[in-house]
Amino acid sequence: MGQTKQIELSQPGANPVLKLREVSAPQLLDTDHVIIDVAYSGLNFADVMMTLDLYPDAPKPPFVPGYELSGTVKEVGKDVHDLKVGDRVIAGCRFGGYADCVSLPRWQVRKTSKGLQEGAASVVSFLTADIALNQQCRIRPHDTVMIDCGSGSLGVFLIGICQRVGVKEVIGLTSKEAKKEVITTRGAKAMTLEEWNKSDKKVDVIINTRGGGTLKENRKRLNPLGRMIGLGASHMTAGKKRSLLKIAKEFLSFGLIHPISLMNENIQVGGLNVLKLFDSPEVLLESFAAMEEFQITPIIDQVFEASDISKAIAYLGEGRSQGKVLLKWRSDVL
Amino acid sequence: MGQTKQIELSQPGANPVLKLREVSAPQLLDTDHVIIDVAYSGLNFADVMMTLDLYPDAPKPPFVPGYELSGTVKEVGKDVHDLKVGDRVIAGCRFGGYADCVSLPRWQVRKTSKGLQEGAASVVSFLTADIALNQQCRIRPHDTVMIDCGSGSLGVFLIGICQRVGVKEVIGLTSKEAKKEVITTRGAKAMTLEEWNKSDKKVDVIINTRGGGTLKENRKRLNPLGRMIGLGASHMTAGKKRSLLKIAKEFLSFGLIHPISLMNENIQVGGLNVLKLFDSPEVLLESFAAMEEFQITPIIDQVFEASDISKAIAYLGEGRSQGKVLLKWRSDVL
Repeated sequence: MGQTKQIELSQPGANPVLKLREVSAPQLLDTDHVIIDVAYSGLNFADVMMTLDLYPDAPKPPFVPGYELSGTVKEVGKDVHDLKVGDRVIAGCRFGGYADCVSLPRWQVRKTSKGLQEGAASVVSFLTADIALNQQCRIRPHDTVMIDCGSGSLGVFLIGICQRVGVKEVIGLTSKEAKKEVITTRGAKAMTLEEWNKSDKKVDVIINTRGGGTLKENRKRLNPLGRMIGLGASHMTAGKKRSLLKIAKEFLSFGLIHPISLMNENIQVGGLNVLKLFDSPEVLLESFAAMEEFQITPIIDQVFEASDISKAIAYLGEGRSQGKVLLKWRSDVL
Repeated sequence: MGQTKQIELSQPGANPVLKLREVSAPQLLDTDHVIIDVAYSGLNFADVMMTLDLYPDAPKPPFVPGYELSGTVKEVGKDVHDLKVGDRVIAGCRFGGYADCVSLPRWQVRKTSKGLQEGAASVVSFLTADIALNQQCRIRPHDTVMIDCGSGSLGVFLIGICQRVGVKEVIGLTSKEAKKEVITTRGAKAMTLEEWNKSDKKVDVIINTRGGGTLKENRKRLNPLGRMIGLGASHMTAGKKRSLLKIAKEFLSFGLIHPISLMNENIQVGGLNVLKLFDSPEVLLESFAAMEEFQITPIIDQVFEASDISKAIAYLGEGRSQGKVLLKWRSDVL
């Protein structure tokens, strides 16, 4: 029986232990499963939080993290008729993606005509952007949209989807004046955070990735019947210094919402943690199906060898990456 | 100069003073205004709250309450070209609707081919239902919807709009087994509150009019990516005995929402107070335009003479009405 490599998080905490191990190669777990030879695995902030033991939904260690990957089909179950050995595919999974070979249900796997780096870098970002805008906000052409991560790697997808729907206006925010050009090149109107805060501009839809106090502030910038989706708290994961006190403060800074205030303001507030949706096929499938037709090129910051996982996680945790961080499992693929 | 009658709330509180007064007939306030001879004014729970001095957005007394009315056009401003004297119309307004003659901006007025009782009984209910479902939730055919006031007068509109969109399933709740037939006749699936609470049914959209603790409970009944709109707190206005302590308790019973919990649950929570939207023409106009084509017959519980306003308000405040309560201004109209 063959061997496979996977990365196990055995000890989360301030000094996390992530080990590359050899285990028995996976067998088809069911007749509707697909075995994939993995080329690249994508890293997410949730993985950083997990290694720090700050992610409540993580399984009990030791476990294999990883939500997204790309590769080629190695074997298909007898009920899988639309994929064949050798097909280039992308896949999403709830944990287990940090491995050079995986068995996944057919529905979590999609054929791709794109490069495999691009593919692994797109799964979670595309699903997040598409679900937030098309399934949650259900954006329409007369909407105006503000995206608070306009120059970031998720911003590419958010702006691209807004353009495809053809909304009236998309504003992308960035922390630095110098990055405004990135946003205008993407086709959105660019504002620095400072400019946005000083302006009295209001919009119909806000995508908030910063969390904390910005959610409270952004609420006031919604038009009547406006909606805001919180996608995370990039403030909480950025930077090297982290302490429970800092985290508790950040948690409180979000503020609490009284439902009556939502009535008075005629607004909606929601949240999305796309990683949890891998338990809800019906929801993911709609966005998954829309993925291939989108011509959005993700931004890849750096590709690490799988054996350098600890360096990769530390790098992502520092919050300086300008795009997706990937793990590479093979030398023979692009 | 002619005279007009209006109802003034001069002293809100436990023993409110509502007086029918004669004042000078209104003149056209602007060139895009319309003067209407009012046939019927609709009463809303907000009016009850106002008389009790429990409605923070009410103007300083004395003032004329009233959000909706029907009647015939008496005079049009020189910039109004699509309405003429004698046209049957309905109108929405933020205060001022309890009068037998009003001057309103053209955009708040719509021609109607319906009976004037029906018209006055439809404005706020239709706008509320349409805005909540079509502008806020943006319901789609694959959605399942739960409406917690299935047998009530707003329920007619909510169920009717769901059917028009053709959603997969509409469930209407009612407090009493005997009222389930009303809901099934309307074309929705009926459940008693008890049955709903005991079941583990989940839905994509919840319209909550009860408020208080039910909002917190209903959150758990949303599918991933589900949305809930709170339309009020019918618990707070129903019943005769009211005290500040009771109101404070009810306010607290809503519970507070932490934005991170919305992310963890992948849901949206919102609120609607349609009465506040009379300041936002662009929002109201979309739903106002959809109103005439809808063939929904409102439920009218009782029509009071305008001079019986105090009785009418008390009756609505008791929470026993099974439909709309109207005020009648003339004897010569239907």
